[in-house]
Amino acid sequence: MEAWKAGLEDVIAGRSAICQVDGEAGRLYYRGYEIGDLTAHVPFEDVTALLWLGELPGAGESERFKARLGAARGLPGPVRDLLQSLPRDTHPLDALRTAVSLAATFDPDTRASDPEANLRKAVRLMILLPETVAAWQRIRNGKTPVSAPTSLSHAAYFLNLVDGHAPSPEVARVLDVVLTLHADHELNASTFAARVAVATLADLHAAIVSAISTLKGPRHGGANEDVLAMLLEIGEPSRAERFVESRLGARAGLSKHERGNPQMRVPGFGHRVYRVDDARARVLRGMAKSMAEATGRQKLFEIAERVYDAMRARTTLPVNVDFFSAVVYDALGIPPDFCTSIFAVGRVAGWCAHALEQFADNRLIRPRAEYIGPAPRAVAAR
Amino acid sequence: MEAWKAGLEDVIAGRSAICQVDGEAGRLYYRGYEIGDLTAHVPFEDVTALLWLGELPGAGESERFKARLGAARGLPGPVRDLLQSLPRDTHPLDALRTAVSLAATFDPDTRASDPEANLRKAVRLMILLPETVAAWQRIRNGKTPVSAPTSLSHAAYFLNLVDGHAPSPEVARVLDVVLTLHADHELNASTFAARVAVATLADLHAAIVSAISTLKGPRHGGANEDVLAMLLEIGEPSRAERFVESRLGARAGLSKHERGNPQMRVPGFGHRVYRVDDARARVLRGMAKSMAEATGRQKLFEIAERVYDAMRARTTLPVNVDFFSAVVYDALGIPPDFCTSIFAVGRVAGWCAHALEQFADNRLIRPRAEYIGPAPRAVAAR
Repeated sequence: MEAWKAGLEDVIAGRSAICQVDGEAGRLYYRGYEIGDLTAHVPFEDVTALLWLGELPGAGESERFKARLGAARGLPGPVRDLLQSLPRDTHPLDALRTAVSLAATFDPDTRASDPEANLRKAVRLMILLPETVAAWQRIRNGKTPVSAPTSLSHAAYFLNLVDGHAPSPEVARVLDVVLTLHADHELNASTFAARVAVATLADLHAAIVSAISTLKGPRHGGANEDVLAMLLEIGEPSRAERFVESRLGARAGLSKHERGNPQMRVPGFGHRVYRVDDARARVLRGMAKSMAEATGRQKLFEIAERVYDAMRARTTLPVNVDFFSAVVYDALGIPPDFCTSIFAVGRVAGWCAHALEQFADNRLIRPRAEYIGPAPRAVAAR
Repeated sequence: MEAWKAGLEDVIAGRSAICQVDGEAGRLYYRGYEIGDLTAHVPFEDVTALLWLGELPGAGESERFKARLGAARGLPGPVRDLLQSLPRDTHPLDALRTAVSLAATFDPDTRASDPEANLRKAVRLMILLPETVAAWQRIRNGKTPVSAPTSLSHAAYFLNLVDGHAPSPEVARVLDVVLTLHADHELNASTFAARVAVATLADLHAAIVSAISTLKGPRHGGANEDVLAMLLEIGEPSRAERFVESRLGARAGLSKHERGNPQMRVPGFGHRVYRVDDARARVLRGMAKSMAEATGRQKLFEIAERVYDAMRARTTLPVNVDFFSAVVYDALGIPPDFCTSIFAVGRVAGWCAHALEQFADNRLIRPRAEYIGPAPRAVAAR
């Protein structure tokens, strides 16, 4: 065995034709298309088709793909019953994970590695996630889940399910862009978890449950929940600088690794792959600014800008996708513990794309550990 | 970036003091103790304490650890309600995964990375798995879940929960050994999945849900289900040889990778790490023989022996843990689709050990992919 890198940093775990991350330049491409080009010109449904099938759909294909998604809409009865039985303080990610796991028990396609069956499952999962996330957001707030007009785009449909009425075209467009920005990111931890599950030939639902389990952590999708909570805690732009100062100086309660890493203390900064601010963060910052102006919730944006400046002055850490997305979520009226669910509603497109790619050319993902425990020894007489 | 190995074969993903696998010699050690030494002298509860805490417990510690496990016994009401609501044909692993995901919603410890809280969670998970597996086995067969005397060992307690009565000491001992044999195996796919989830600082329940999701696949825990189904399908010892012959010759419906790998066609043979029959398989073969004699279910053992001989004559693949464990499960009266659940009841000890180790010295597990997709291109006018 050879030298190894902690956390598999920069270690290649497989080939993929889906997503390219240029960490030095802060660029991101889906199937060759730059992320800013996609958010400017392509709706999320077409981005999903691109991720799954390899090419942007033509007009007819796009309509057919949207019709498939549309036909899958609706909250399954058993999922509704489950959500209604959960404690109201259940974290939305826990509710989502349990619901998707349950949905496997009534999925009509039983063959785990049949490509056509998996495309049907992926379509159902693309819808199951927003339906579940929206229903839980209503149920935990004492409201009844609603349905929504089938004519709406994926983003508008989801917002309607959450709010009980159709969003303005501007707000729907913001969420459409947010979903595309979160749709894929190469072998991030949750996507890698999905591929590890598929590589045992577990079924697609199992893979998505594994991905949701892994997304929850604050070192991954859970980070934007922490960002929004932090910005709300700061409360006033004038307090941002001192807050950053004190977080960067904090050492108590941190592990050795955390103490050495400032991004462990100010969520929304630092990334395993990016060395500069990434393209997603740039798009989100622009949107956060216009949303803040449009909704009058400018204070949080100002706090975010102050935190951003304070971090730039003190560290070389790039801002990441979680930071300004939290401001956008706040402007959309989304509470902190709901942020990671929105991330999942976008990322499920990429999870499914990677699962389909893994099924198509599979090999068990099974690394080794360097053993550092006791030498061989015998059990003493007992 | 560097050259890479498909499936992370032989790639070191981290350090661990828990388990050592010697693939060349077919040896397995937990914390330095050889697996045969442990199964001969140490009950599963003490093996669990060894995996979690690093040393075999002394007599007093052992009693205290067993008392902690004992105090956690009982099927939580919400899990019982969930199981009773599932379709009867739900796969036991799907039921288990959903139940553990649900249990996160009422777990009293909320801090994800507090070591003491995680030990309490691990104790609850050690019990939740056998309780859930046994309850679902009864419910899906139209029976009511039962409780069992608290004086029983972990293995005997589980069998009592399944069967409604205490097992004989001999049968309890067989299951105790089976659980120890399955308790850990370094960075197997499900354990690796648990560590990937923990590395995002997701909570312990999320990590175990991810592990169960990953265990399900027939290239991992799902294999012993396939072995038992295969042995039952063969039906007669005289048909074993021809069956193996025809499976090894089959090419239709297999991927390129599967065609090149005979173990993809005869479950129970071949392993990513072992080059020879492993120690677990040797222990299980002996147990399978005595169990078959004791229960009079000798035919299945004979079929297994014939398959084993036929594979030895035709391939260099070692027999693995899944092969003879299937015969043992059959002798215990366990149906094929219940086998992987037994695997989980043992392996949860190792999943928790690795999760605790990952929490104690964490770093995000996030590899890279080699991009093989289209070169940068612009979205055409739409």
